[in-house]
Amino acid sequence: MKRFFAALMACGLASLAAAEEGMWTFDNPPVKQLQQKYNFTPTQEWLDHLRLSSVRFNDGGSGSFVSATGLVLTNHHVALGQLQKVSSPQKDYVADGFLARTPEEELKCPDLELNVLVSMENVTDRVLAAVKPGMSEKQANDARKAAIAAIEKESMEKTGLRSDVVTLYHGGEYWLYRYKKYTDVRLVFAPEQQIAFYGGDPDNFTYPRHDLDIAFVRAYEPDSTTPARTPIHFRWNPAGAREGDLVFVTGNPGSTSRLFTVAQVMYERAYRHPLIIQILEAQREILRAMAARGPEAEREVRDELFSVENSLKAFRGQYAGLQDTLLLGRKIRWEREFRGRVEADPALRTAYGDVWDRIAAIQAEKLEVSPRLNASNPEFFPAPHLQLATLLVGYLRERARPEAERPERFRGENLRQVEQILRGAPEPDREESARLLARRLAILQTWLAPDDPLLREAIAPGESPEQAARRLVNTSTVGDPARRQALLAAGPAALDTTTDPLLHLARRMDDEFRRLQPRWQEITASERIQQERLARALFAVYGTRLPPDATFTLRITDGVVARYPYNGTFAPPHTTFYDLFGRSASFRNEMPWTLPASFAARRTAIDLATPLNFVTTNDITGGNSGSPMIDREARIVGVVFDSNMEALPHEFLYGTESGRAVGVHSAGITEALRNIYQARALLDELLGARQP
Amino acid sequence: MKRFFAALMACGLASLAAAEEGMWTFDNPPVKQLQQKYNFTPTQEWLDHLRLSSVRFNDGGSGSFVSATGLVLTNHHVALGQLQKVSSPQKDYVADGFLARTPEEELKCPDLELNVLVSMENVTDRVLAAVKPGMSEKQANDARKAAIAAIEKESMEKTGLRSDVVTLYHGGEYWLYRYKKYTDVRLVFAPEQQIAFYGGDPDNFTYPRHDLDIAFVRAYEPDSTTPARTPIHFRWNPAGAREGDLVFVTGNPGSTSRLFTVAQVMYERAYRHPLIIQILEAQREILRAMAARGPEAEREVRDELFSVENSLKAFRGQYAGLQDTLLLGRKIRWEREFRGRVEADPALRTAYGDVWDRIAAIQAEKLEVSPRLNASNPEFFPAPHLQLATLLVGYLRERARPEAERPERFRGENLRQVEQILRGAPEPDREESARLLARRLAILQTWLAPDDPLLREAIAPGESPEQAARRLVNTSTVGDPARRQALLAAGPAALDTTTDPLLHLARRMDDEFRRLQPRWQEITASERIQQERLARALFAVYGTRLPPDATFTLRITDGVVARYPYNGTFAPPHTTFYDLFGRSASFRNEMPWTLPASFAARRTAIDLATPLNFVTTNDITGGNSGSPMIDREARIVGVVFDSNMEALPHEFLYGTESGRAVGVHSAGITEALRNIYQARALLDELLGARQP
Repeated sequence: MKRFFAALMACGLASLAAAEEGMWTFDNPPVKQLQQKYNFTPTQEWLDHLRLSSVRFNDGGSGSFVSATGLVLTNHHVALGQLQKVSSPQKDYVADGFLARTPEEELKCPDLELNVLVSMENVTDRVLAAVKPGMSEKQANDARKAAIAAIEKESMEKTGLRSDVVTLYHGGEYWLYRYKKYTDVRLVFAPEQQIAFYGGDPDNFTYPRHDLDIAFVRAYEPDSTTPARTPIHFRWNPAGAREGDLVFVTGNPGSTSRLFTVAQVMYERAYRHPLIIQILEAQREILRAMAARGPEAEREVRDELFSVENSLKAFRGQYAGLQDTLLLGRKIRWEREFRGRVEADPALRTAYGDVWDRIAAIQAEKLEVSPRLNASNPEFFPAPHLQLATLLVGYLRERARPEAERPERFRGENLRQVEQILRGAPEPDREESARLLARRLAILQTWLAPDDPLLREAIAPGESPEQAARRLVNTSTVGDPARRQALLAAGPAALDTTTDPLLHLARRMDDEFRRLQPRWQEITASERIQQERLARALFAVYGTRLPPDATFTLRITDGVVARYPYNGTFAPPHTTFYDLFGRSASFRNEMPWTLPASFAARRTAIDLATPLNFVTTNDITGGNSGSPMIDREARIVGVVFDSNMEALPHEFLYGTESGRAVGVHSAGITEALRNIYQARALLDELLGARQP
Repeated sequence: MKRFFAALMACGLASLAAAEEGMWTFDNPPVKQLQQKYNFTPTQEWLDHLRLSSVRFNDGGSGSFVSATGLVLTNHHVALGQLQKVSSPQKDYVADGFLARTPEEELKCPDLELNVLVSMENVTDRVLAAVKPGMSEKQANDARKAAIAAIEKESMEKTGLRSDVVTLYHGGEYWLYRYKKYTDVRLVFAPEQQIAFYGGDPDNFTYPRHDLDIAFVRAYEPDSTTPARTPIHFRWNPAGAREGDLVFVTGNPGSTSRLFTVAQVMYERAYRHPLIIQILEAQREILRAMAARGPEAEREVRDELFSVENSLKAFRGQYAGLQDTLLLGRKIRWEREFRGRVEADPALRTAYGDVWDRIAAIQAEKLEVSPRLNASNPEFFPAPHLQLATLLVGYLRERARPEAERPERFRGENLRQVEQILRGAPEPDREESARLLARRLAILQTWLAPDDPLLREAIAPGESPEQAARRLVNTSTVGDPARRQALLAAGPAALDTTTDPLLHLARRMDDEFRRLQPRWQEITASERIQQERLARALFAVYGTRLPPDATFTLRITDGVVARYPYNGTFAPPHTTFYDLFGRSASFRNEMPWTLPASFAARRTAIDLATPLNFVTTNDITGGNSGSPMIDREARIVGVVFDSNMEALPHEFLYGTESGRAVGVHSAGITEALRNIYQARALLDELLGARQP
């Protein structure tokens, strides 16, 4: 999960609304749906119990109280940052795992804050009342911000609780969320990373899977040495769930915006996704070439290569979703429905009827500007010689202007650093540089018109990108520090007389980038405005009948344990310890399928048929890592740690055909604690035998 | 394997030539290739040893001698027919398995013939000499047949050996193959079908896989009670092969014709494959609807439903191959290369230069005729009421003609049966009939022009296929036996005056079918002629540098044990008993993942890490079932039993990216015989400890 969601979030991918999706807020749970789908009626008491047993990890992630004395279950990869911080060269808790056999052995997490959502209050009227008629958009915005700050401050002073005003439905509602805050949190248990992240990057966000991706921490009462009193917590179901069972997930999904219009989806499909895939493929090829030089080089680039391959896996899955006509058809029907309702109501039509066409027009503009902006962007797939040339051009042009008007990188200390590089950096490897430049030119060639001036500046008629790159790098003198120093001395006028082809190209790029960059900012700003209007239209039509976009606040989703079609047959509803040992044996225990010593040593002590991981149809996303998976009786049956690859298109539209949430099964956790880690006290606490 | 190849063979799918493919004859082994690829030089002695240790199962399949006393290893599914024949209501050897603990307990196979290829002789000159200048194509054909028959008879009389003249390279070469024949063959061992075909239809031709698809039989000397003396046999390698190891497969691949032109591939892609998939999907939907009526109905259609789903799996895999631009690009390049060589040689150009264009023209004709032929074919996706109507039309028209001119189904006893049906058959269920007819009409609608006369006869303007089918069935009287009897009495003239819409449709279909059927036969005959010319061109250009199409004769192929990319990660080079028990536990031992009692009982007695199945890059196809997999020292490391899904496109072009042959690992066989079946004597014989 970690790498997958990180990659997607970094790219700011938004997603789409669906009818079945289910990240509901606790003030508006889908009671009717649950009754219809499962004949299950959640009581307010049951809902409160879930909410108060759920924990937010403030640095991203979820968890839950699983004992009356503050014990919290989460993922190993959610606790990983703290594990790294408490480790030392002598004690590597990441590699070796950690178990506190007594309260005294628990290790204090350096900077972990846990939040429990203790109350929710609708403050929409108060926030909206701050906006007076006649205010400009900026004034209104400032007024809302001021109102929100006042509410938060007032609540904080009154209750002493962390108080956040949360914007839901893109401003359709504002809620005051109050959290009980725990800042004294201690590590109780973590397995070896090799079993928490078993199968490593290759197996990451795939299923069948075999990861013990769990960790236990304990919340302590503030300013005391007493474990937190948590009489409200989830009980432990050591048998866990089986196929067909209803499962709820509570947690804090990070961000979704399932609001993309069809035009936006088509932009992703036509340009952004294939471009990102192209870049990742180019990076992979370069890294593979580096790795092929020898074992030492291979080790150096291994992590980066894995990370690129993982991003490729994610984006290709996304792209497949974008090309899936079934999925796209559903999205088109959904938009037609929504738009039809807006069109049918005169007031809504006047207010929002034009939003789809406006967004579509913006996509056309993006499609026109974006390839040229990327072509002129010095940071886009950079090659060392071209970087030196663009830096030189930027420096010469910016130094002549007043400091306040320069971009950040050419001010003060930054400027001096740039100058140092330009004066002193030795010539980069020409061959390497030409290879990278060729890649950049080849990518640009895919997306620019053949007569694009920038392309013509870079590639002479009849040249291939490789030939052009070699010529540019070999005839340029920007690699030579002495030559650069001469240019620096000559000042910006030198750029007008130079015959250096890379400097010519860099100058044209700089011109083009200065021209296009503001236009791009305008386009994206107007897209944001239309996106907000679209969100208001959605709220006006559907109100709270659809769950709001994820906002890293507490949500509840329902689902069932279910196999799914895969590889021409079925992926099983759960995997077992048999499969874990099998996968290890199938790869002769090589990395990343090596078993930790603890597992190898205790093999005969465990019941191999015990479920280890399992899959459900719950609608989850990043931030749900560590979320409790619970049964109708609100007992723990597992902990969410990933999605399968087939769930990637859920970014665009949720569906239950084959996308699944992947969790660690509570029976597997129980078995591992009892028979591998022999964590008797911890297990007793989970099973309720010990209530100190 | 069984179901997959059965389905493909039934459809007569031909396939394509590739550079890497490797079903080589023993007279022309790829010695240079083996030296280059593996630094391995096979000696003539080694090759002879392989040939004489390999066994052909005359009813389809392969095997090998694995002891000096006639013991033969093959697949359970190759021996299955014999197992069924020796079973009785009291003794179900298919379900329960079979083990002869002494020679006396071995069970005679009712009708099994094994062949061992003892000599090969090139008789091309003698066969071709039979053809004299000036002979017509038919005369030449007859002369060749006569020469072949004479050679076979002469050899048989001289040696007493089975003597077959084999046509290789589509007539480029003729070889006399002499076989030692064993007709007294006895069953030694077969496991329970539940473990031989573990995972059943869902897991069929997928991998990772967990099947003990093996059987042992013993050849006996003719007219004696002595086991065959087979001093030349494969020794047993109880450790088997591991990843990277070189593996040879010898066996009798049934049929390939990797000669399709790009135009033929495009016809498959444009019409034949999508049509077959459409038909299979329609069948599946109908069967699913039937199954949904209740558990009894579900049981009744279960086997057929699985079979349809398996065919769907196979054809979708094929179709995916046809749509894979990488694969298609390789095929196009290969054809360009081949055609370029023909064009470059004046003699070849005159002889064969036009063959590609001719085949392309034939495909265009097929594309025009085939949909209309299917539309008028009464056997195409039949619905009961329409069947009655077409039968009535056919009967009335044919009965008036002399018997000799009628098609087979309207002659003698057949005619009387048709008459009985027409006179007596009660009305079929109208709803069911309308549903099937609607499906047929919907399929036709996809492929016929909107103004096609037959389509217009069936579907009124504005009608959906469902509405049309309901109208046709409900307004027709062909369901009523009395009404049919009246029509039979009135004779063919009644067809001209009837207002029954189904009879109108049936009459038009009959007209159309009589018109198109001969044309279709002409088209396919001329395609066969061009295909032969293409084969001659291939032989003229490449000679024996490419292996000939498979002809159910002995071939050798090389490959290595290799993981492959799948499901976002890697499929392992081998599976283990861990995985088998894991898959069972993951599905809570439900069918078809139920373990046989023997495995469940002996679980603790076996080393679960033992490899069970494994994958190699060998180029195989139907007929290779039961083929020995051997190492450099000609020791058994496994037995072929299937391909993975990714190998489906090998029908069109062989490649090693992810297509794999799947075998049972020799270590797994050894472990099962020793610790599950406790077949001590059999194991001793395999390991060479016992040489009676």
